[in-house]
Amino acid sequence: MRPNDPVEHLIALLAKLPGLGRRSARRAAQRMLMEPESRMLPLADAMRAAAAAVRPCSNCGNLDASNPCHICSDNQRDHGLICVVEGVAELWALERAQAHHGAYHVLGGTLSALGGVGPDDLAIPSLLARAGGAREIILALPATVEGASTAHYLAERLASTGVPVTRLAQGVPMGGALDVLDDGTLAAAFKARR
Amino acid sequence: MRPNDPVEHLIALLAKLPGLGRRSARRAAQRMLMEPESRMLPLADAMRAAAAAVRPCSNCGNLDASNPCHICSDNQRDHGLICVVEGVAELWALERAQAHHGAYHVLGGTLSALGGVGPDDLAIPSLLARAGGAREIILALPATVEGASTAHYLAERLASTGVPVTRLAQGVPMGGALDVLDDGTLAAAFKARR
Repeated sequence: MRPNDPVEHLIALLAKLPGLGRRSARRAAQRMLMEPESRMLPLADAMRAAAAAVRPCSNCGNLDASNPCHICSDNQRDHGLICVVEGVAELWALERAQAHHGAYHVLGGTLSALGGVGPDDLAIPSLLARAGGAREIILALPATVEGASTAHYLAERLASTGVPVTRLAQGVPMGGALDVLDDGTLAAAFKARR
Repeated sequence: MRPNDPVEHLIALLAKLPGLGRRSARRAAQRMLMEPESRMLPLADAMRAAAAAVRPCSNCGNLDASNPCHICSDNQRDHGLICVVEGVAELWALERAQAHHGAYHVLGGTLSALGGVGPDDLAIPSLLARAGGAREIILALPATVEGASTAHYLAERLASTGVPVTRLAQGVPMGGALDVLDDGTLAAAFKARR
């Protein structure tokens, strides 16, 4: 390790990205350094451009180059359906699955007593402000203890608006073999049989 | 997929890096977009700085911010020992292992009849030009068919210099359990017992 070495510095920053360990960071840096003009500079430019252009949508919290985001400003979509998600990753996953053709609301996390995340740390006031005009609020929160308690809290807070609150179905995933599913999923799917 | 979207463009470029699939590229982009000032711009700057500073060493082919590279210009090292490697990745791996305290020579690949890589496509002339002054040439090439045939070719070409040519030992890797080793390694280690 040589201090102030541009290669070491680049590898250290790359290694901080999720999904890239030190080994992959090194491989990525080597590959880019071998083709700086065609690989490294275009990526650096794309980062600068994205950092300059992308902001959280002031309506739903999606990260996008326009504000309101392209979903909030799309009048082909049903803005009466608001799908509440933990983060942008979940919003993008639902978009890729083309599962939802309404609007979103990004909470920015889930409630966690242990993690010290309370209602004021999440985008809950803005959800309550938007909820009144909606026809349905869909809580698409993770099937974890935090996700379930957040959904429970939101359902209580939203009750006064009179807007129906729904949750994603839980059950056997597509292609899921029953004998490798965890007991919790299997029991929930059995209970929710129809 | 929206054309000209800075986020999609960033993800597409990130996904081309070795070790990053589309899924990890998306996660990395999301993480960076949430903290553009602290994550994305420093990485973009590090890339620009590395692209501007790093060049192949005109002596050994190492990628470095100085030319000759910090290894070639280090007079604490034994420049009479030249370790021949396939690429910069292998050079860096040997440096991390602190296995070699001499100089290097990066070939830029291995000979491959199928891949259409001949002696003129590799840094072989520059190796022959350097070899005369050396005390030993260490061929640290991969233990593959291409690596072995490249080593064989180099040994023949280097014979006229009179400089001793050695190769890395093959055998059981450190911590390697015998029953999970492949047959080729096991046979080679057995044959080379000492």
